[in-house]
Amino acid sequence: MIRFACDYDEGACPEIMAALHATNFEQNPGYGEDPHCEHARALIREAVGREDAYVQFLVGGTQTNQTVIAAALRPFQGVIAAATGHINVHETGAIEATGHKVLALPDREGKVRAADVDAYVKAHWADPTHEHMVQPKMVYISHPTEGGLLYSLSELEALSAVCRQHGLYLYLDGARLGYGLVSPDTDVTLKDIARLTDAFYIGGTKVGALFGEAVVLLHPDLQKDFRYMIKHQGGMLAKGRLLGIQFETLFTDGLYTRIAQNAVDLAMVLRDALREKGVRFLYESPTNQQFPILPDRVVEALSDRYAFEGWGRVDDDHTATRICMSWCTKKESVDALLRDLLPLL
Amino acid sequence: MIRFACDYDEGACPEIMAALHATNFEQNPGYGEDPHCEHARALIREAVGREDAYVQFLVGGTQTNQTVIAAALRPFQGVIAAATGHINVHETGAIEATGHKVLALPDREGKVRAADVDAYVKAHWADPTHEHMVQPKMVYISHPTEGGLLYSLSELEALSAVCRQHGLYLYLDGARLGYGLVSPDTDVTLKDIARLTDAFYIGGTKVGALFGEAVVLLHPDLQKDFRYMIKHQGGMLAKGRLLGIQFETLFTDGLYTRIAQNAVDLAMVLRDALREKGVRFLYESPTNQQFPILPDRVVEALSDRYAFEGWGRVDDDHTATRICMSWCTKKESVDALLRDLLPLL
Amino acid sequence: MIRFACDYDEGACPEIMAALHATNFEQNPGYGEDPHCEHARALIREAVGREDAYVQFLVGGTQTNQTVIAAALRPFQGVIAAATGHINVHETGAIEATGHKVLALPDREGKVRAADVDAYVKAHWADPTHEHMVQPKMVYISHPTEGGLLYSLSELEALSAVCRQHGLYLYLDGARLGYGLVSPDTDVTLKDIARLTDAFYIGGTKVGALFGEAVVLLHPDLQKDFRYMIKHQGGMLAKGRLLGIQFETLFTDGLYTRIAQNAVDLAMVLRDALREKGVRFLYESPTNQQFPILPDRVVEALSDRYAFEGWGRVDDDHTATRICMSWCTKKESVDALLRDLLPLL
Amino acid sequence: MIRFACDYDEGACPEIMAALHATNFEQNPGYGEDPHCEHARALIREAVGREDAYVQFLVGGTQTNQTVIAAALRPFQGVIAAATGHINVHETGAIEATGHKVLALPDREGKVRAADVDAYVKAHWADPTHEHMVQPKMVYISHPTEGGLLYSLSELEALSAVCRQHGLYLYLDGARLGYGLVSPDTDVTLKDIARLTDAFYIGGTKVGALFGEAVVLLHPDLQKDFRYMIKHQGGMLAKGRLLGIQFETLFTDGLYTRIAQNAVDLAMVLRDALREKGVRFLYESPTNQQFPILPDRVVEALSDRYAFEGWGRVDDDHTATRICMSWCTKKESVDALLRDLLPLL
Repeated sequence: MIRFACDYDEGACPEIMAALHATNFEQNPGYGEDPHCEHARALIREAVGREDAYVQFLVGGTQTNQTVIAAALRPFQGVIAAATGHINVHETGAIEATGHKVLALPDREGKVRAADVDAYVKAHWADPTHEHMVQPKMVYISHPTEGGLLYSLSELEALSAVCRQHGLYLYLDGARLGYGLVSPDTDVTLKDIARLTDAFYIGGTKVGALFGEAVVLLHPDLQKDFRYMIKHQGGMLAKGRLLGIQFETLFTDGLYTRIAQNAVDLAMVLRDALREKGVRFLYESPTNQQFPILPDRVVEALSDRYAFEGWGRVDDDHTATRICMSWCTKKESVDALLRDLLPLL
Repeated sequence: MIRFACDYDEGACPEIMAALHATNFEQNPGYGEDPHCEHARALIREAVGREDAYVQFLVGGTQTNQTVIAAALRPFQGVIAAATGHINVHETGAIEATGHKVLALPDREGKVRAADVDAYVKAHWADPTHEHMVQPKMVYISHPTEGGLLYSLSELEALSAVCRQHGLYLYLDGARLGYGLVSPDTDVTLKDIARLTDAFYIGGTKVGALFGEAVVLLHPDLQKDFRYMIKHQGGMLAKGRLLGIQFETLFTDGLYTRIAQNAVDLAMVLRDALREKGVRFLYESPTNQQFPILPDRVVEALSDRYAFEGWGRVDDDHTATRICMSWCTKKESVDALLRDLLPLL
Repeated sequence: MIRFACDYDEGACPEIMAALHATNFEQNPGYGEDPHCEHARALIREAVGREDAYVQFLVGGTQTNQTVIAAALRPFQGVIAAATGHINVHETGAIEATGHKVLALPDREGKVRAADVDAYVKAHWADPTHEHMVQPKMVYISHPTEGGLLYSLSELEALSAVCRQHGLYLYLDGARLGYGLVSPDTDVTLKDIARLTDAFYIGGTKVGALFGEAVVLLHPDLQKDFRYMIKHQGGMLAKGRLLGIQFETLFTDGLYTRIAQNAVDLAMVLRDALREKGVRFLYESPTNQQFPILPDRVVEALSDRYAFEGWGRVDDDHTATRICMSWCTKKESVDALLRDLLPLL
Repeated sequence: MIRFACDYDEGACPEIMAALHATNFEQNPGYGEDPHCEHARALIREAVGREDAYVQFLVGGTQTNQTVIAAALRPFQGVIAAATGHINVHETGAIEATGHKVLALPDREGKVRAADVDAYVKAHWADPTHEHMVQPKMVYISHPTEGGLLYSLSELEALSAVCRQHGLYLYLDGARLGYGLVSPDTDVTLKDIARLTDAFYIGGTKVGALFGEAVVLLHPDLQKDFRYMIKHQGGMLAKGRLLGIQFETLFTDGLYTRIAQNAVDLAMVLRDALREKGVRFLYESPTNQQFPILPDRVVEALSDRYAFEGWGRVDDDHTATRICMSWCTKKESVDALLRDLLPLL
């Protein structure tokens, strides 16, 4: 059985395992105040091109979203997101746990559009009963989205402009950021993101780390006392060194993008081969997750040798599937899949 | 200027004012443990036909929704509601303030359908990642709805059945319940509601009281320690007698339905007169709120003599309006409005 | 039976009942945006001597504390209070309900001392693990305290100074403020309070109103968007006029202090008569609540004619009691009590 | 510099590092539903002697406390703890973040006494205003305590009995549980704990793991839907395997107690040597943390070669210190410390 079910089926990339091993008997202070965390912060500040960026490390994505959003909002404020956004669907109400409503916009393939934000915020303030409604104060986007799509630079600039105009924070969930940065179809860099958002995180869990997300806070209001917030949410890792060591490894010698590149390259191989056979896709993803719509008989025929998820039925005999490549997917695995799949189409 | 803007523009019905005056110098224990509250509870238990009903009084509707819902749910559970439901739109996140997500169903004219609930709950439990999503545990409905519509007895029975089948609580927001109970188009009684729901409240604020809502808890799990919950939410009125006195007045000699009848009768006069002239309505409301769609020029022409709210534009030259009748609206006021309005159509 | 059990056993003072009656059929917009509320706000701004004061009205004290504190604090911040403070003991965790810890200082007869606050805050920031502890950001005091005691002007100035030095908000719970302002032993005026605190409330419920507290927000950060906060906490009264009418009545022609004076005058009569007989007091209260320590046989002997609360046993045959005077206590009642009590001592 | 500053200065014990390395390229499902987690659960169920124990793994201690406590309590309920308890002092309000008050008992060297719990709970229910106070529903203890002390079996039995009598949950924080289980002075076994508590956790972070705590839920009410609760609190680790692998390693061939034994043995060497020289201790700890009270000149003289924490000043020239041994402290390190320390006394 070869698994393409998700991008975190394995442990960590070998460089990280080696670094954890090499430093295991070092004695370090706890809670993210050790030299490895400091070093990782410096590397990230350099990579994002902002000396004023404030960097902290958290263990997982939901925890990160919860902590950043709750740190930013007053009690009656809410966060705008796509209806399919991770915080709106797949976090068991972790945002609501902190008292905040997720304000779901009509879905545009999982992306939030500047014009929709603008209309929403204007309508809020124009309504004479606006005090009876949650006040929008932040916009949450994922890049790549749940469906593997990317914002273009101009889309991101428009979102950033509309947020700044209305005094909203723009927050980008980068759980799979590495796979977005190396896509052949992107014109968005890490520096663009650091320039256009108020906060974002660089995902480690899905991009080669054992676990860990690097939160980058750009707006000064979000930086203040953020470590209290981490502890308040139960998210402060005792041996914070583990996060520092992983991120200093990922941001040394371009490891983070290098391992992401492998996943995206293989995804493109799959995409191109399927496109050529006329296969349609649920989303036209230029990143490591591919969503081909396959005949049920094909899905069935492959199921004893390959693992991947169903992503919803499309019609009576077709299913949208999700096929994930990761930092450690092998070329041979994709070749094998195509060899078995293509003849069935 | 004659106001039809909402159903709580005035103080309270004269019987309530008289009762408050008559009891003003009585000395009573606080916090809803006085003889007036006890008497009001007994009257309500009788009216709803359930000796086992547990009755408490709260000051307002949002507070009531917040307290009942937070008392019922575990932290990771949510409440299903229509997308246009009051708790989803007009309570500034008061439900989320208690940590719970409102699970919005696609809108069916503001009503929740049993089939939609059934499908939602089944889909939740069928999803292998259900632990990553908020667990549905309660259904919230309004009767009448925000748009003045009523559930039929069979609709309510179907909702109740599906909730019981799936172990969900059914909670009915009766902010305008009086106006629903006396509608000529309803087949639902107070006893039906007490039989089919797990909790509901009888609205006083919008039906002749200065303020106050009577919460009726039927499911034993919701009854336990509910008074702690009231205090925890900041909702325990020191001079609880004020609530007891108002509700014993409303439930003596049929006052509650009598004053509601006046509002609905006048609303039907308005509805019939407008229908006869071919006016369309945003909702076909059989209760005290009417939502006629009027030409803008008519709205404009009436605006200096009559106050009522716009309820959204329908097309380039028509607006849906909301015209409210209340316990103290006068027949002469409606006659005057029609006299001025009808010739303009 | 004559009741001295608490200061809110009755309804409201006659002037308020008359005003509610006189305005009952006025039509007013809801939610505290009517002319009565506006007028009451102007009267209060004048009484407190601050044109920049922002005034809103809430229904009860716990709700007020909860709303003000939650509006002021970030999630990881807490509020310092006396261990016996109302928010720490008698609000069923309403502050914790909003996510905030009450940081209890060692008790000094129910009062918070500037030196204790100073030491607490300094110790917090000096601790290298301060991020692992709740950050102090507000001081909560009651004036009068639960035990009827008052801060002197110099005590209040010292508290204010230490709060401003450390960047803490000073918030005063004035549930019984009227009884404090008219005490013969006070040197603190309403204007002093408005000058020295960041927020306080003027209690109506316990000083002659049916219900209601007037929140006075002085610090600009606390004023912003406070009405959203009220609605978010479920505390926005639909017929806000009721609060406006009551407070405009209380702040017209000195009614608020006049009715408070009656209570304090009678309390002083009681205090002096008991002192003369050598009775000791649990607290040396100069306000409407008196806490004489009485032999159990005396308490027992009076219990069928007079109602008052036990406030804890002092020794094997003495009990501390609480005897409350209110705006509507009659001189004859106190005379009768003394006539029956004194011979027993 | 040799560090005795805390028991989590290093990474993980070599067996865990080896297991993580050996399994790194295995493909496993996420979120704690992999074979390693299942195996670890079985090993723990066996070790605690309860087939009905429900075991889940979390990353850290504060997160664990927050999740278990919030899962167990209704909104208006609180958790009783020692005033010095970790949840009351060192978690930045993480319990209050979930809406619950920590009810602090007067301190008894960091331990909670059955008699105090009994008195507290009885006083609560006897108070006629009990609905105005947080309802006690759980008792939180640490074993070892913050000061390294242990409950005796009879103390634990008494606590368990009083909790069961009053319907309270008993929850034991075992952040350093291993060090308690192997103490020469204990008569409490893991099976006793599983028999006497409703929930506890077996600490990994401070006892040889990279991170991780194994939550053992015994009361059926606490087991239900606990995984939703983990996700709701942001605590579900994507690569849950990491927790499973660590705990299956710790609970294979007695590793968990073996590494704990090293720490406690060395602590006893230190304790006995200092006792012999007449040194007093802040707490008479029979576990891995020792709290000798040392002359300031001694602390000063050692400070350039040994790192350990000050634990509060005792008098003008003495300081209580904390000297920690861990799973990886070397005998040579303790010998060196004693060689340098003893001559100074």
